[in-house]
Amino acid sequence: MADRFFDAHRETLEAALEAIASRGFWSPYPEHPKDASYGEDAAKTGQQAFESRLGRSFELDQPGVVDLISDETSPYGTELGVTYPRSSVNALVTAAGAAGKQWGKATPQSRAGVCLEILHRLNRRSHEMAAAVMHTTGQSFVMSFQAGGPHAQDRGLEALAYAYAEMSRVPSDARWEKPQGSRDPIVLDKTYRIIPRGVGAVIGCSTFPTWNSYSALFADLATGNAVVVKPHPATVLPLAITVEIAREVLTEAGFDPNVVTLLVDTVAEPVAKDLVMDSRVKLVDYTGGSAFGDWLEQNVHHASVYTEKAGVNSVLIDSTDDIGGLARNLSISLSMYSGQMCTAPQTVFVAPEVETDEGTKSFDEVVELLANAVGGLVADDARAAGILGAIKSPDTVQRILAAQAEGDVRLESRAVADPNFPDAIVRTPAIVVSDRSDTYGEECFGPVVFVVPTESTDDSIAKALHAANARGAISWLVYSTDEAVIEAATEAAAEAGVSTAINLTGGVFVNQNAAFSDFHVTGANPAGNASLADPAYVANRFRVAQVRRPAA
Amino acid sequence: MADRFFDAHRETLEAALEAIASRGFWSPYPEHPKDASYGEDAAKTGQQAFESRLGRSFELDQPGVVDLISDETSPYGTELGVTYPRSSVNALVTAAGAAGKQWGKATPQSRAGVCLEILHRLNRRSHEMAAAVMHTTGQSFVMSFQAGGPHAQDRGLEALAYAYAEMSRVPSDARWEKPQGSRDPIVLDKTYRIIPRGVGAVIGCSTFPTWNSYSALFADLATGNAVVVKPHPATVLPLAITVEIAREVLTEAGFDPNVVTLLVDTVAEPVAKDLVMDSRVKLVDYTGGSAFGDWLEQNVHHASVYTEKAGVNSVLIDSTDDIGGLARNLSISLSMYSGQMCTAPQTVFVAPEVETDEGTKSFDEVVELLANAVGGLVADDARAAGILGAIKSPDTVQRILAAQAEGDVRLESRAVADPNFPDAIVRTPAIVVSDRSDTYGEECFGPVVFVVPTESTDDSIAKALHAANARGAISWLVYSTDEAVIEAATEAAAEAGVSTAINLTGGVFVNQNAAFSDFHVTGANPAGNASLADPAYVANRFRVAQVRRPAA
Repeated sequence: MADRFFDAHRETLEAALEAIASRGFWSPYPEHPKDASYGEDAAKTGQQAFESRLGRSFELDQPGVVDLISDETSPYGTELGVTYPRSSVNALVTAAGAAGKQWGKATPQSRAGVCLEILHRLNRRSHEMAAAVMHTTGQSFVMSFQAGGPHAQDRGLEALAYAYAEMSRVPSDARWEKPQGSRDPIVLDKTYRIIPRGVGAVIGCSTFPTWNSYSALFADLATGNAVVVKPHPATVLPLAITVEIAREVLTEAGFDPNVVTLLVDTVAEPVAKDLVMDSRVKLVDYTGGSAFGDWLEQNVHHASVYTEKAGVNSVLIDSTDDIGGLARNLSISLSMYSGQMCTAPQTVFVAPEVETDEGTKSFDEVVELLANAVGGLVADDARAAGILGAIKSPDTVQRILAAQAEGDVRLESRAVADPNFPDAIVRTPAIVVSDRSDTYGEECFGPVVFVVPTESTDDSIAKALHAANARGAISWLVYSTDEAVIEAATEAAAEAGVSTAINLTGGVFVNQNAAFSDFHVTGANPAGNASLADPAYVANRFRVAQVRRPAA
Repeated sequence: MADRFFDAHRETLEAALEAIASRGFWSPYPEHPKDASYGEDAAKTGQQAFESRLGRSFELDQPGVVDLISDETSPYGTELGVTYPRSSVNALVTAAGAAGKQWGKATPQSRAGVCLEILHRLNRRSHEMAAAVMHTTGQSFVMSFQAGGPHAQDRGLEALAYAYAEMSRVPSDARWEKPQGSRDPIVLDKTYRIIPRGVGAVIGCSTFPTWNSYSALFADLATGNAVVVKPHPATVLPLAITVEIAREVLTEAGFDPNVVTLLVDTVAEPVAKDLVMDSRVKLVDYTGGSAFGDWLEQNVHHASVYTEKAGVNSVLIDSTDDIGGLARNLSISLSMYSGQMCTAPQTVFVAPEVETDEGTKSFDEVVELLANAVGGLVADDARAAGILGAIKSPDTVQRILAAQAEGDVRLESRAVADPNFPDAIVRTPAIVVSDRSDTYGEECFGPVVFVVPTESTDDSIAKALHAANARGAISWLVYSTDEAVIEAATEAAAEAGVSTAINLTGGVFVNQNAAFSDFHVTGANPAGNASLADPAYVANRFRVAQVRRPAA
């Protein structure tokens, strides 16, 4: 069956292999909720499937279940009421270890077939997933659909393709024939076998449960490792559905479903440390705050650790030939999902005089333009709610207020009443001018934008570089009409291991990283030690054991 | 010039890329000292070059030299008297960081050209290197030539090829064109740039200074990292010559020679910890004992750490159709360089009854055959000295005596008088029967062989598996005429991350791992966390920084 799955999806894999090499636009998973391929009733069926899960226990048939728990929260105020079976770390790691033996011996093709089928079924369930992501993370419906569904599936497929490609570098066998002058050559037959590392632990985050987990999940699975998925206790449902589908496909393909299990915990009784410190766990993937990510990097020595943590993404405004487009584009990037994206820009460095197509603008004029653009974008409550989504963590509201107290507020955050979800916490972005590096240079997760007056664009670059080296950064967004400035900024960015976007004024936003084309996080600064996805992300997830013997 | 080097050696690189993919026999560096390509006078010229270095200071023109030091020892009793310039860790890491900026911005082709030229010149100097390796490590001349010269160069080229291949996965640019229905597509131009990690630290060992360092050195260099080479204080000369040649080529190619520097220390004042704890060091490669290797894995969090440590390599004797060949082959493997190879077999598990082409042999008969084979091989002092080489560390002699006190000695180690080097410490292997896992299951570096009586071959496999899981293992050598036994042993070996050799009775020895074909160490057990060389060995030595901008 696994081989049938492989045959069914072989073309998708081959296209993905081509895409990671050429890095143009490509995706097999339609990103439009109304794409005809999803079927006419997809939206309704998906919503119903989501609703049918509410107020019930989530069945997974996992080993060692001790009770049913939930700490899940809905930023939209939806009454979720889903409880999840809790098993001990030991029960799930033991089950994963046992299930992993058969999985690890399957061929890369068989495993890829299972992974491709899981991704395919996840794709067909994207509307249900969208509802689950929306009502647990607070993303808007469209973002929930795209980032929770097809774009997450893209990331999973991308990692699968990288893993498949890297495993393919090793031939299954070779004949080694060493000349011996006039005597017969020495001839050895050799076989090379991909062996998995052990059990993988995938630790999800509360805001992008699928997008930030699928790379790890499918990289581990493709390379033969069983996976224990540990969702954030406040955002479980999207990964529970993922695990359910994975177990269903594994069973159909004749594998032990415990190749993928769900480990749930609560805020009061977290188990992530117990999980990663189990010596049978050999791969750890984590997305979330820097404190725990740093702890993982410093304390987990028996496993390979891949982290995506926090950072300070910078915007550098030097000059522009489209100030209107700049303000429009930035206002959306700064508002989208209330800055609750690891890719959201946070700190805007502005030169004293900015040459634009509308004349030279002073620092204050630039800030005013930005404040007006953001203010205008979120002026209408209904429209604002659709862009901002809802705030996932109550801490975020505290952070907004604290940030406003620390600088010169040019746009005050206000509470928005979402007409569809009266209990949702929705806040517009605050725009705060500050020249204190201990304010603008620290990550302030949520809808807070710091604008920093600098002495020059060189000074902007130096300040952004300092923040990136100290706290990490995923991206810089640079606006300049001067190629020498762009060159200097991209050089500095490369030095700090930061990716750069230049002069975005249209419909592409710096927050958005496309699988198969954009490397998400470089792994070269404190924002994370790995990239989604590249050869380094997958190559350490397997080893090779060889056998050699004299040829018959 | 770097590009001229690349053009000159392009075919070698292309052949290496082909070799790592097909993994048949291949090498561009002749392994026979008398190969015509080295020239008629190569042996004499090389020996003279070596001798001209003795009793003098080694000139390197490195920054921050504070004094001249040496703790170098010669197992053959040669008076070396070479002193080396000592610089501080800070001086060399600072210089490496500065030199690395230009190096990191060079193209992969330019860097590969420089690396290929360094390897080429090292190859042309293989006779000089052989003398340097011989008189610092105690290897025989032939082993010094091969393992110190062409085989080490092979490993360097192999790692270079892997690094080049993995960097080539990333295109330099791409056009990303996303359809927008009836509207114009969104078009972005993207560039991808390989960025280095930082400074690499390569820590050499006393017995195979070049073979175990070149993979790391060339993997780091190829991917744009400057390298500080820290040889073992007792074995400096081979790596000093290597660094000298590297600096010469770098200078000719217009790079700062501090891309490669030599950091010397003494036994009393070791600096390896200072080096690796410098936060600018982002890559650490180490070959040597497990204690420091484990320390590195557990304490160096700011860098990627690659270790090749100790292990217990096992031989499993179940049955054979060539008992004479078995005894001959094993006697050589057990004697070669006095067991001072990380690949040397140490522990021989023997089933109670061994079916052979000369009838069923009891455990004691098998041990007697082995003892006779080894004893015969090293009976004559002159011949023995050529096989055994000399003992590098005085500790090794103590270990032989301690091991003999712990079990039933079936062949006693004896001191051999090397007719050419009267001061050399040369010892024949001890063969000791023991059923204590805390004896046979611990690494006993040097010419000590433990033979373990087991209940059955299943028991042999279980005991070897236990030792591999607990202490690590690079290889198992299995003798059996039963394919089911071979299958069971290779399955267990794969589970433990151990490579297997089957029924070696001829001219191939389990100790020998050939670059381009044999993966040296799996990285999947305590013998080491990395393999020489595979994609995982190189993929984390660089990152990718991307730039995207709307197409013009």
